[in-house]
Amino acid sequence: MKFYIKKERLIKSVQDALKAVAVRTTIPILVGIKFDADDRGVTVTGSDSDITIQSFIPKEEDGEELVEIVEPGSIVLQARFFSEVIKKLPELIVEITVEDQFKTIVRSGNAEYIILGLDAEEYPRLPIIEDGDHFSIPNDLLKSIIKQTVFAVSTSETRPILTGVHWMIEDSQLTAVATDSHRLAMKQATLQSEERNGKSHSIVIPGKSLNELLKVLDESNEPIQMTITNNQILFRAKNLLFFSRLLEGKYPDTSKLIPTDSKTIVKLNAKEYLEAVDRASLLAREGKTNVIKFTTMDDDMIEISSYSPEIGKVVENVKSISTEGEEIKISFNAKYMIDALRAIDGTEISIYFTGTMRPFIIRTDYDDSILQLLLPVRTF
Amino acid sequence: MKFYIKKERLIKSVQDALKAVAVRTTIPILVGIKFDADDRGVTVTGSDSDITIQSFIPKEEDGEELVEIVEPGSIVLQARFFSEVIKKLPELIVEITVEDQFKTIVRSGNAEYIILGLDAEEYPRLPIIEDGDHFSIPNDLLKSIIKQTVFAVSTSETRPILTGVHWMIEDSQLTAVATDSHRLAMKQATLQSEERNGKSHSIVIPGKSLNELLKVLDESNEPIQMTITNNQILFRAKNLLFFSRLLEGKYPDTSKLIPTDSKTIVKLNAKEYLEAVDRASLLAREGKTNVIKFTTMDDDMIEISSYSPEIGKVVENVKSISTEGEEIKISFNAKYMIDALRAIDGTEISIYFTGTMRPFIIRTDYDDSILQLLLPVRTF
Repeated sequence: MKFYIKKERLIKSVQDALKAVAVRTTIPILVGIKFDADDRGVTVTGSDSDITIQSFIPKEEDGEELVEIVEPGSIVLQARFFSEVIKKLPELIVEITVEDQFKTIVRSGNAEYIILGLDAEEYPRLPIIEDGDHFSIPNDLLKSIIKQTVFAVSTSETRPILTGVHWMIEDSQLTAVATDSHRLAMKQATLQSEERNGKSHSIVIPGKSLNELLKVLDESNEPIQMTITNNQILFRAKNLLFFSRLLEGKYPDTSKLIPTDSKTIVKLNAKEYLEAVDRASLLAREGKTNVIKFTTMDDDMIEISSYSPEIGKVVENVKSISTEGEEIKISFNAKYMIDALRAIDGTEISIYFTGTMRPFIIRTDYDDSILQLLLPVRTF
Repeated sequence: MKFYIKKERLIKSVQDALKAVAVRTTIPILVGIKFDADDRGVTVTGSDSDITIQSFIPKEEDGEELVEIVEPGSIVLQARFFSEVIKKLPELIVEITVEDQFKTIVRSGNAEYIILGLDAEEYPRLPIIEDGDHFSIPNDLLKSIIKQTVFAVSTSETRPILTGVHWMIEDSQLTAVATDSHRLAMKQATLQSEERNGKSHSIVIPGKSLNELLKVLDESNEPIQMTITNNQILFRAKNLLFFSRLLEGKYPDTSKLIPTDSKTIVKLNAKEYLEAVDRASLLAREGKTNVIKFTTMDDDMIEISSYSPEIGKVVENVKSISTEGEEIKISFNAKYMIDALRAIDGTEISIYFTGTMRPFIIRTDYDDSILQLLLPVRTF
């Protein structure tokens, strides 16, 4: 194998592939990144066997030559070390040559590295994604769906299924739900189905995969193609493939958790309210409970407070835009509230309470595709 | 105690004082920061008993009112928590009131924190610095002296005296030396002595203190006043006092370590050479030895290389500006070389060798106040 390649493109592709490479792995070759050079260009693959990321560098793009293939072939190189090496190379072009015994020569200007590579034949095959169902989704919308739900997955392995985000697709309507059983985040969106076979899907994508996917999706507005099979999902962007294993098992039915009526509705300026909660959370966190209190007062005022016998107390009054219905006095986890408010990202939010002991929901008038639910903490 | 204060100034002073506050301490009150409000302004003090930092906020500066003292007094507040609290406050002005039992009310806009404070009477007294010798030094020069030496102190407590930088002052001439016994950094400078009593000083300032001092020195060009006593040094900048304990014990005589003759002199472009060493160091680090080789070749070329049986090899040829004297083939620690080159910070450097087994020195023609010495590693 021998090729010349534009350094910046190689760095970008290696960084993308590197996001799938685990620091520790039980399959030794997976500490490596695989390079395949053929007559189309160079493909860079990283995997931890749950996630596989493949970044492609075409021979030419927009009339600019990116790769010159002298001899096709494949090699696996130690991922982290190689990614450091190429970042430090002196010239704009890198020459990569594989000799006997997988000995790989990386040359740029006067600098020459001889790196002991590994046999690409030993590298696991990609998942086979052929007969899955295809959907298409704008890049921005996919990012929103992920950001507005993934933070709510469980970080505990007690119920592994809750470490993923549940995607239900029916007639191209996607409902994404994540819950750690203390809070729930839901987002709805419309996909473009390429094959309207009317089939519905219920899959659970690991939260970790979605977080990594966020990092490799670029700023472009090209739609992302998705293919769903039994145990894999593939996201396909320009020059990028992102495979993730799906979680096995049945996701709990969350629809009944969401209250449909409410006894108190408080509408708030989102920024003012978030800042007040954030200030109260400082003390709540320091006091280890992480609990803050929300109390409706006279004149549409809301009192946000937190108390810790060792540290002290914080109280702040926030004027609501409107407060309707019964008085309420409720406690909740400060961090979960902050996460929910950041996910909604509107200028005004409404909180719908049905009682001190009941879950409550947060929505915004501007965007009914998103819903956040919190369970109260019992302190009263 | 009660005062109103500009939030930004309070944040800055607390951040400075916080740099002296240890995360863990055997003296419980030192997790706090002390505030003293008197008719001149507010003094903010943090200490870990080795380092004490005191930042002063005057009532007025450049015609702008910074503090309004309603009632003088003192209080100690938990340092890290308080510094988080004030950063999040909503308004530009903060009101701080101490009530009974050291209960402290921090108010800004609608937000109110009640923080349980500690008795300022329990806080240790500042070191007494009265009869020391005084010197003055430009801010920039003080920073250079620190940056060009402190990285070479020992990080091991085997010989505690080597964890400090040795300052020798004679007739206002300062020589600063740091060594961890594998390398040595030396910087010379001229101080302004305010009291020319002809006394010479030989003190050892903890490396940690100098690193913290670097962080609190601002960009201004006002000279720094220094006062040296038996066991303390005080740096005095505008509105800032920085006290450090001195290390006890006798610093080794390092003057005999520095070779005075040389058999090979190699002059190099500093940037080109640093980049080549940096590239070789990648492999040296990955191979765990951290050793790279330096070999003079024909035509004034220098070969920089590193080899690891598990990882591979790196070779790079750098053209020297000139190579005089005997051929040389020498190995050294890559990180130490990089540290030394970064400290010198010139466009051209010269390396003076006296043999494969002998220490060698690095200097620049542009600035003879700085010298870096490295011991070779025996690999040949």
